[in-house]
Amino acid sequence: MQDTFTHAVVRALRESLGADVVALPAEFEGRKHADWSRTPSADPIALVRPRTTEHVATALRICDEHNQPVVAQGGLTGLAGGACMLGGEVALSLERMTGIEELDTVSATMTVRAGTPLQIVQEAADAAGFMFPLDLGARGSATIGGNLATNAGGNRVIKYGMMRDQVLDVEAVLADGSVVGGLRKMIKNNTGYDLRDLLIGSEGTLAIITRVVLRLRPKPRVVSTAWCGVGRYEDVTTLLHEAQARLPAGVSAFEVMWPGYYDFVLERLPELRAPLEDRHAFYVLLESSGADPESQNEAFENFLAEMLERGVLVDAALAASDADAAAFWAIRDAPGEYPRLIPGRVSFDVSFSIADVGEAAIRCEAKLRERWPNATILVYGHLGDGNLHIVVQEPDWAPTVAPEVQRVVYDVTAEMGGSVSAEHGIGLKKLKVLALSRSATELAAMRAIKNALDPKHLLNPGKVLSR
Amino acid sequence: MQDTFTHAVVRALRESLGADVVALPAEFEGRKHADWSRTPSADPIALVRPRTTEHVATALRICDEHNQPVVAQGGLTGLAGGACMLGGEVALSLERMTGIEELDTVSATMTVRAGTPLQIVQEAADAAGFMFPLDLGARGSATIGGNLATNAGGNRVIKYGMMRDQVLDVEAVLADGSVVGGLRKMIKNNTGYDLRDLLIGSEGTLAIITRVVLRLRPKPRVVSTAWCGVGRYEDVTTLLHEAQARLPAGVSAFEVMWPGYYDFVLERLPELRAPLEDRHAFYVLLESSGADPESQNEAFENFLAEMLERGVLVDAALAASDADAAAFWAIRDAPGEYPRLIPGRVSFDVSFSIADVGEAAIRCEAKLRERWPNATILVYGHLGDGNLHIVVQEPDWAPTVAPEVQRVVYDVTAEMGGSVSAEHGIGLKKLKVLALSRSATELAAMRAIKNALDPKHLLNPGKVLSR
Repeated sequence: MQDTFTHAVVRALRESLGADVVALPAEFEGRKHADWSRTPSADPIALVRPRTTEHVATALRICDEHNQPVVAQGGLTGLAGGACMLGGEVALSLERMTGIEELDTVSATMTVRAGTPLQIVQEAADAAGFMFPLDLGARGSATIGGNLATNAGGNRVIKYGMMRDQVLDVEAVLADGSVVGGLRKMIKNNTGYDLRDLLIGSEGTLAIITRVVLRLRPKPRVVSTAWCGVGRYEDVTTLLHEAQARLPAGVSAFEVMWPGYYDFVLERLPELRAPLEDRHAFYVLLESSGADPESQNEAFENFLAEMLERGVLVDAALAASDADAAAFWAIRDAPGEYPRLIPGRVSFDVSFSIADVGEAAIRCEAKLRERWPNATILVYGHLGDGNLHIVVQEPDWAPTVAPEVQRVVYDVTAEMGGSVSAEHGIGLKKLKVLALSRSATELAAMRAIKNALDPKHLLNPGKVLSR
Repeated sequence: MQDTFTHAVVRALRESLGADVVALPAEFEGRKHADWSRTPSADPIALVRPRTTEHVATALRICDEHNQPVVAQGGLTGLAGGACMLGGEVALSLERMTGIEELDTVSATMTVRAGTPLQIVQEAADAAGFMFPLDLGARGSATIGGNLATNAGGNRVIKYGMMRDQVLDVEAVLADGSVVGGLRKMIKNNTGYDLRDLLIGSEGTLAIITRVVLRLRPKPRVVSTAWCGVGRYEDVTTLLHEAQARLPAGVSAFEVMWPGYYDFVLERLPELRAPLEDRHAFYVLLESSGADPESQNEAFENFLAEMLERGVLVDAALAASDADAAAFWAIRDAPGEYPRLIPGRVSFDVSFSIADVGEAAIRCEAKLRERWPNATILVYGHLGDGNLHIVVQEPDWAPTVAPEVQRVVYDVTAEMGGSVSAEHGIGLKKLKVLALSRSATELAAMRAIKNALDPKHLLNPGKVLSR
């Protein structure tokens, strides 16, 4: 293996941390480094798998001494190429820094190592009588560290917020190997700059997060779910407003699907059942999760009846059982089948003000349709958060079409003042469109912060901000 | 007035922005510059009162060219001396940048100029059928910009979060006069570093916030309030946990008062009525605000009955009217009378994990009592957020005692891993104790960020980080 030490930094890492922590290329041959976005990744010159925060600090200190770039890896379920490598990097995987260090039922907190999969955290919270509300399809593989690095969103943001809202403190290692943050459990802590929120969502470019104190929530005792047919966009936003103002437990999901999406998934997935007989201009999956089984379902039913009577709803189906609710959610969760159903698709994760989402969907679809009249165009999203997902595909598209499709949707996004990345982050894939949602002065400020905390640009170079 | 132009920067400001915007010392004689913490302030060399973001940008660009320090002023209701001047600064008051630019009822957002008083925002939200949840005693004078600069807290943090949780976007001017941020209404926006949260809570040391998009919430339609007597700290935290898990609308306030506080305010303020006959080890003001008048009050009453039956509560009084609720809140709001009741007091705004608050109160009181057996010691706070307020006084204390009292309380705070400033910020007053709650590496990272965004240290110099 003599020849693998062409890199002095790899030799230094191996000498300090040992062969258990630092693997050479021959020792991890065949390992995949690309994320779920299928962004191509180079192979790293070494794979560091620390067991402790001290290991991470030592690794980054050595890499700093050798001007060696480092890419942190979590569960590799990202959708923006944020963890892929450009060539010549050391990969630092948090896969061995797993486990729950403490669950404090009085303070309602959980102290967790960054490599712990999201689902393990959800299950531990549940077993202790709490809920950890962040949820997304990749829960079994996605790690808490990756959720933090990308400020993950998902289905419950409308009630509980993004990943940054689930966190009391983070411990992280900066590019020079110094450890910042702690494991503090305070809900309020106005002592200087908000380093925590700066590191969350920075996609491994400012620090590597090693441990975190998560905030737990009361576990809902009753979940009410309905599938709604709505005739006009104004009625969709009225329904949202009224549901937030009047449901005793508020709104825990407000997922909107346009007919193109609904028809497509019902046609292609025969296991799905249509909750309502007729077709509608909009379908809304409305969910309310609360604490009082006695009053909640009745209030939910009364609310739907009144919305029907007022004409805000054209039709609605109330879930009478968990199976009914699961059948409604299966329609919304159909994107899990995309790899099989709609290969070669171009996907978007954009956001607008809630008032603008309807118009944004119309404009995007019209401009796409003008150019590609026969394309499959699927529109749906977390409307309560202004988050729209759009999927576009034609069976025989050449790879060169994707940038043209992107241009159409991102131009509408920019002209309506929206965000080119609502929840997936920038990574490598959205570098070119970041400037559509951020001004030159904001990008300059981000660069100044990057230079301040990682002056040699060693942490995940070329991601979020171009080199 | 020739002689007032000893400062070239003042001349340049006046020439660019006019006498309407830039006042000379003789023109604002007698104006006060100290905040509610009574931290002494020097007079500024000029007072800039911009009417637009462009005025702020021009002023900061000129100050940058002249290496001239600038201190932003809002309503001057701060409690840490963050807006006071050390000598030689230009004061930039946002008092003319007031008003609501837009209230979007569909997106539930309000676009506001930074100088707008909090109360104006609350009232406008209310008139439009929403609630702006941030609330604090200084609401009539405190400005939205000041609330942002200090990440204000208050009574409703347990349900709605701090000021940073009420904000979708901020527009701000950096030290070099460049304008960052915008007036975007997206709830989700993962496009690069979280500049918004970095500027919020930075106390005017990184930028001057000029405008903001606030997030509005559904207006509660029913508020249930109870005054509770509790025997043990374990029961206080059990009550909190059970209320959060089981009240249909959750908990909107959970204010705890220790007997020393309760006895003192009831004795000194004859207009207060005791809600319960007996004395108790802890008093809890429990409030739940929700959407469903029909079910909520009954569920609240049933909850209290069960807590009494289980022995978690020793006694409880349910507010049967708004007047009852106001009478309970009057006991909690008695600190508004401190200037008259307890002059020369030493006050604290510390926080701990919820599990630690009880022990922290015991340790602080015991150590203070040991040293000053006859001192008045009042302990109370927003326990649902882990936030403890402690007030200590003896009638004849010399001013030299304050630092000794502070040392006792801050030592306990540090040894229990708490925060020396839960909601008031650092400003000038807490500079010396910041290092008790932040590590050397965190302070170094904050300094690096300060250097990156304000390399000449012109914005509010000497605050948050010492010079």
